[in-house]
Amino acid sequence: MRGVAIVGLGMTKIKAHWDKSMRDLFAEAALKAIDDSGNLEPQVLYVSSMLSGELSGQSALGPYVAEYCGLRDIPAIRIEGACSSGGVALHEAIQAVSSGAYDTVLVGGVEKLTEYPTSIVTSALAEASEQEYEAYFGATFVSLNALLMRYYMNKYGVKYEDMAEWPVLMHENGSVNPYAQLPFKTTIERVISSPLIADPIRLFDCAPTGVGASALLVTTYDNAKKVTDTPVRIVGYGVGTDFISISLRERLDLLRASINASNKAYKMARVKPEDVDVAEIHDAFTIMAILSIEDLGFSKKGEGVRELKEGRFRKGDKPSINPSGGLKSRGHPVGATGIYQAAEVAMQLRGDAGPIQVDGVEVGLTQNIGGAGTSITVFIYKL
Amino acid sequence: MRGVAIVGLGMTKIKAHWDKSMRDLFAEAALKAIDDSGNLEPQVLYVSSMLSGELSGQSALGPYVAEYCGLRDIPAIRIEGACSSGGVALHEAIQAVSSGAYDTVLVGGVEKLTEYPTSIVTSALAEASEQEYEAYFGATFVSLNALLMRYYMNKYGVKYEDMAEWPVLMHENGSVNPYAQLPFKTTIERVISSPLIADPIRLFDCAPTGVGASALLVTTYDNAKKVTDTPVRIVGYGVGTDFISISLRERLDLLRASINASNKAYKMARVKPEDVDVAEIHDAFTIMAILSIEDLGFSKKGEGVRELKEGRFRKGDKPSINPSGGLKSRGHPVGATGIYQAAEVAMQLRGDAGPIQVDGVEVGLTQNIGGAGTSITVFIYKL
Repeated sequence: MRGVAIVGLGMTKIKAHWDKSMRDLFAEAALKAIDDSGNLEPQVLYVSSMLSGELSGQSALGPYVAEYCGLRDIPAIRIEGACSSGGVALHEAIQAVSSGAYDTVLVGGVEKLTEYPTSIVTSALAEASEQEYEAYFGATFVSLNALLMRYYMNKYGVKYEDMAEWPVLMHENGSVNPYAQLPFKTTIERVISSPLIADPIRLFDCAPTGVGASALLVTTYDNAKKVTDTPVRIVGYGVGTDFISISLRERLDLLRASINASNKAYKMARVKPEDVDVAEIHDAFTIMAILSIEDLGFSKKGEGVRELKEGRFRKGDKPSINPSGGLKSRGHPVGATGIYQAAEVAMQLRGDAGPIQVDGVEVGLTQNIGGAGTSITVFIYKL
Repeated sequence: MRGVAIVGLGMTKIKAHWDKSMRDLFAEAALKAIDDSGNLEPQVLYVSSMLSGELSGQSALGPYVAEYCGLRDIPAIRIEGACSSGGVALHEAIQAVSSGAYDTVLVGGVEKLTEYPTSIVTSALAEASEQEYEAYFGATFVSLNALLMRYYMNKYGVKYEDMAEWPVLMHENGSVNPYAQLPFKTTIERVISSPLIADPIRLFDCAPTGVGASALLVTTYDNAKKVTDTPVRIVGYGVGTDFISISLRERLDLLRASINASNKAYKMARVKPEDVDVAEIHDAFTIMAILSIEDLGFSKKGEGVRELKEGRFRKGDKPSINPSGGLKSRGHPVGATGIYQAAEVAMQLRGDAGPIQVDGVEVGLTQNIGGAGTSITVFIYKL
């Protein structure tokens, strides 16, 4: 298999973007990425989005965004994996390059969630859960996550106020991120007193809905070395899938798909969890952050919250987790999130992450979750 | 690049399927394909669908269908390219195998279009066209095709009653296809007197909306030779994209994306149009069939209808086009159509296409169109 590296990246700030369409946003990120690569010409385009059809009424999303990037003729393909759409699209980009069929790939994500009433957006996001037996009987997406959180807290004797450390850390990290949707600091007290959404999940446990686009230029490692001094190699990856029906899973206190995906990625990269310097993980809800920390091997099962409270995972620790502010503070433009994570970790490795830069990053990792642990991608990066 | 071959295939009959969900249908086709391969175990799953989110409210379609196939853990990824979703998914399956990352891939398509009022389905299908400047101002998907048909008829002096030869031929072919949605014969008179949908397109120029699923087991050619005496090699492929906005295209009398995709496929396969024995092409509307025949090189530009009227493209001619009955008679379960085509051509090469079998097939071709010529895939197959 041919080695694959990131040589260009671009993002938009995450906010409401009332004045921009999906292709305005995608083109902004994509043209930045192409420019950042020294104007490499992509031979295929992948675009990830969860809800472009449901909310914006646009299928054929590949050709739709390609048009505004000035790209014609080349394959332009949409990938959907609910909230893991971005990570899954990066998986396709890697296959396209490593197969030898294409040398240079543009892969980006875009999601537009504003312009619609909250009830419609909430219903649309719930499409990430099983519709026929779970959603149909009234389980919302946040309620399924609440169930996992309650079960975890009960099984491991964890208090809510200790879990509240997570959003506080995320807002501290995100407060200096120029791309972040919610760049402000917060406190344990404010988290604890925020409105209940689905007990025990409170408002501050939830990533906000945001709009944004992100893009990467990916090419062979041999090409990459010619165009930049800091190609970011993707040295390992894995995609794991679990039953979408939570009712069918044997254990609710772990993310089986994350364990499978990361084991594969670690093995391919010849890297261990303790080698990772910086990780961007999918904290759509606080419980997803804690399960992910444990199931990526950064903490033992049931001890993630204790370690968090003791001060681990902050900027400068190994690993530093979500220096971007994560989904909680940077934001979560659903189908674009996995690509934001990859771009952020690539910046960390290149040393040009600006105010969110962590010192001495040699090994980076991203983890992107679709559904309540249903589809999970893990990528490992090195210079 | 590693050679890729089809070693298993499965389809459902195309009909309303009121009693079956998307995953019931997908599992039926997928388990047939796995069985047909001698129980090869897929390492990754691709599922194509255009409207699973809009009409059935289900994202994370990959894990959703995987569950009913008894597949857990492996990557399960949805691909969307409007009506070309199936062809685009097959492109991803090829990349996954030829990259060396996966040896065996399950790729299938599913679409459920019943259970909804016609107005909702029509609006949903119109998502294949550009929404902001074309659909927004009232152009329906069929009206865009009508514009292309009117332009073509005027430019090349073609009469409607001659174009009506196409649906008549398709219904003749499809009348013996056990999987076909509309397996009956028709006449020029009946086509000409069918209701106008968007002048000059009449009801009998349009593929019906149908429900179905289809699946393929794809593996390396080396593996394939071990498990079957009739592995169907995919020897060439191309994916072409044109501007989604028809208003931006220089020419309306050709499918630029089809020309690009087929040129690439012919070159890779070292095959010329005159070598093709059987082709399954995307006749969503009669005009798409005629443009495709010309732009795949089976006829000169402007002469497709004359050659059709003279009796070409029938079963036994070279090429025989759409012995299945095509989208017009076999049916068009949108995101599954590209996979139906591949399965049908694979059966032709294996010699087990039953009542639709064409004699002496050595080279097969499929062409799958998304939008009004926006995204087009071409594959070439040999034993």
